[in-house]
Amino acid sequence: MDVKELYQKQEQLLNEEVTLQGWIKNHRKQKEYGFIDFSDGTYFKHVQLVYDDQLQSFEEIQKYHIGSAITVTGQVIPSIGKGQDFEIKVKTIKLEGSCPEDYPIQPKRHSNEFLREQAYLRPRTNLFNAIFRVRSVTAMAIHEYFQERGYVYTHTPLITTADCEGSDQMFKVTTLDLNNLPKTKDNKVDMTKDLFGKQAYITGTGQLHGEAFAMSYKKIYTFGPTFRTENSNTKVHANEFWMIEPEIAFCDLEGLMDIEEEMLKYIVSYVLKKCSLEIEFFDKYVQKGLKEKLEKLVNSKFIRITHHEVIDILKKANIKWEFEPDYEEDIAKEHEKYITEYFNGPVFITNWPKDIKAWYMKLNDDNKTVAAVDLEVPGAGELMGGSQREEDYDKLMTRIKEMNVDEETVDWFCNLRKFGGCYHSGFGMGFERLLIYLTGVDNIRDVIPFPRTPGNCDY
Amino acid sequence: MDVKELYQKQEQLLNEEVTLQGWIKNHRKQKEYGFIDFSDGTYFKHVQLVYDDQLQSFEEIQKYHIGSAITVTGQVIPSIGKGQDFEIKVKTIKLEGSCPEDYPIQPKRHSNEFLREQAYLRPRTNLFNAIFRVRSVTAMAIHEYFQERGYVYTHTPLITTADCEGSDQMFKVTTLDLNNLPKTKDNKVDMTKDLFGKQAYITGTGQLHGEAFAMSYKKIYTFGPTFRTENSNTKVHANEFWMIEPEIAFCDLEGLMDIEEEMLKYIVSYVLKKCSLEIEFFDKYVQKGLKEKLEKLVNSKFIRITHHEVIDILKKANIKWEFEPDYEEDIAKEHEKYITEYFNGPVFITNWPKDIKAWYMKLNDDNKTVAAVDLEVPGAGELMGGSQREEDYDKLMTRIKEMNVDEETVDWFCNLRKFGGCYHSGFGMGFERLLIYLTGVDNIRDVIPFPRTPGNCDY
Repeated sequence: MDVKELYQKQEQLLNEEVTLQGWIKNHRKQKEYGFIDFSDGTYFKHVQLVYDDQLQSFEEIQKYHIGSAITVTGQVIPSIGKGQDFEIKVKTIKLEGSCPEDYPIQPKRHSNEFLREQAYLRPRTNLFNAIFRVRSVTAMAIHEYFQERGYVYTHTPLITTADCEGSDQMFKVTTLDLNNLPKTKDNKVDMTKDLFGKQAYITGTGQLHGEAFAMSYKKIYTFGPTFRTENSNTKVHANEFWMIEPEIAFCDLEGLMDIEEEMLKYIVSYVLKKCSLEIEFFDKYVQKGLKEKLEKLVNSKFIRITHHEVIDILKKANIKWEFEPDYEEDIAKEHEKYITEYFNGPVFITNWPKDIKAWYMKLNDDNKTVAAVDLEVPGAGELMGGSQREEDYDKLMTRIKEMNVDEETVDWFCNLRKFGGCYHSGFGMGFERLLIYLTGVDNIRDVIPFPRTPGNCDY
Repeated sequence: MDVKELYQKQEQLLNEEVTLQGWIKNHRKQKEYGFIDFSDGTYFKHVQLVYDDQLQSFEEIQKYHIGSAITVTGQVIPSIGKGQDFEIKVKTIKLEGSCPEDYPIQPKRHSNEFLREQAYLRPRTNLFNAIFRVRSVTAMAIHEYFQERGYVYTHTPLITTADCEGSDQMFKVTTLDLNNLPKTKDNKVDMTKDLFGKQAYITGTGQLHGEAFAMSYKKIYTFGPTFRTENSNTKVHANEFWMIEPEIAFCDLEGLMDIEEEMLKYIVSYVLKKCSLEIEFFDKYVQKGLKEKLEKLVNSKFIRITHHEVIDILKKANIKWEFEPDYEEDIAKEHEKYITEYFNGPVFITNWPKDIKAWYMKLNDDNKTVAAVDLEVPGAGELMGGSQREEDYDKLMTRIKEMNVDEETVDWFCNLRKFGGCYHSGFGMGFERLLIYLTGVDNIRDVIPFPRTPGNCDY
């Protein structure tokens, strides 16, 4: 039986005998008694096991160290101690796997930095156990949201030759022996000898392929790993992370914002409901006010405002900015913070200067801005970025030339505009950024099971 | 409104006006009438649009080519034609995106080979529309199966330095300029200059990392892309594919088979229910008897038999084998076929010779076989492969040395045995192999949106 099931059925199981399998999280030994804090990882709460010296194996059990794997059989009895409704009176304990006394995960507060060094053990701690369960539940929330609404989950390829975000930001993949590379006559690497016959990359986005499927299914979403080669050691950058990229045909920028808002509220409500213990834990130990922040989001109406209007507000503010707000420029972290505080809630910022945005975004009639939208959320900054896509073939080709995109690798993508193209929109949401928002944890390394950052590819 | 919704609510929508957005799949023009076969991709069935010369735009509409994107408003009326319950009497049609007459996807039978060359357009055909919708629904079935049972969905890293399947089978990833590689004193590539400071790969499995999480959560599953460098041009090999890898603590080989059997039946039932139109289509046009095959699987009891017993049966069979069955060897495709026909259903084959199986599998007491299990399914061969894992640290180290695994990259994995290790098991299921089984399609290139095979990395 799982601990989760035991908690769910605790009333009907009272006085019954149960068998559990899991790990010793803490062990307090007294002369005639012992108390084991037990968890099998299926539930945030632990179970207290009580044993006494009437057991033949009393002395043996007292030797079991924290971290050991055990099978325990015992009776569910009302708890006399505080903080729990029931406990298990041990009948037998079988040691499944021992654990040495110098086991790194002890029942005390470890720093997140220390635990990153123990990535393969850290999900055994309360904090990381909660984080990665929320990660799993949040992933399911996303799938349910889209599947219930008829979106087709599309597995876009990770290995690609298409240049969407710029190939200098992508990892090269190869089967060639780097110490013995085949060369062409002019002493360049002969990529025709590689498995795909040309230089391939692992991708930073599934958007281009997603658009092709949106032109077939109307509504699709991707959810998979993406990669960036950025050599940044910040709290919000990782070289491998997961992205959700929905793409919707016959959808304009207003329609896109409706979807983003509905989806985010759905996810937050889902996690509040399914992970209430974890959220309460984060609220208490990670980010005070987290639960209230999340509940408030669900009930708020998101503001919609243009980039130009945002700059107006920033310029009028009686603040000495580190970066002066500019109608032609991106906004800085300090501006994001001000704007979400100004409106006291999530803000969609639309119609950005074209030169700071991607080549595939729809050019507005002013010829200066594109139909892009970023969602700024209090306390987390930009959570999603999307746009209406340029559906006009000629305008798209002009942008491709202006932005030096490798035309040959995206010709099929452009052709989508020739063969029954239509107005359409999509957005991307970084899964880890969402998790940072949901858990209050502030470092991306702590919401990824085995994070990859510059210089770090252990485990 | 989506076409799916229209079909679901057709009775209450009769005589009502609706607006649909999608694409022209076929267009039959008569002097006073026109008939458009319309689809928006949300449902396998199309909708017939009828328009007549009473419309001002009659002549304009008659010019619209197959493939064009349109917005149509019209009245839902009972159909006079056969094969459908209702049709739409057109009031207005707006052309959203035109399509030239030489559009590659015409309403006729195209070969799968031709359509592979049009990977970005092929989901618009009935066949591929059905395949990739089944892919999406099957993915959801898998998530629901595991989430309902408390498994934690674990995103194991794709970029890795751990040597599980052998690094010669993995793609190298690098940010270095291949035409200008940094060198060490002894003229080797200086991998310390790469982003991670060493040679990294994209992985062929999430199992090692999955085990670490199973030792924290008891039950976990992975579901993500995996990669192999195999230079094979067969119907069943691709260089990029998706895998599901559940890993369960306190689970032995019998328990593992219970899970595999229950999961497969759950998935097949789910797809039969949610994709009945698609399955009927495959049954009619792709693989006769498909539906019966799937229904039979759901109601069958899977056989459990050892590798040794299988070889006994094969040797006793009155058949001239191409490959002679051998107690020390793997079984060939012809043997798999014979065994599933012999038992007339799915067969678990257990306890394989250790030398043909992976290093992390549990050595049986006979010291000759390992506690591995392959599931063989009629008409598809091996669908899943799993094993109880070696939980004994010393035995594992012996195998690592025997099999020349790079010890240093998997030391953390081995340490799991020291820190409260326990008996545990897991399996891997190739997602595309499952889809081949579910759809009857026989080439892996046709169940992957944008397949990657040697020499093929277009789109």
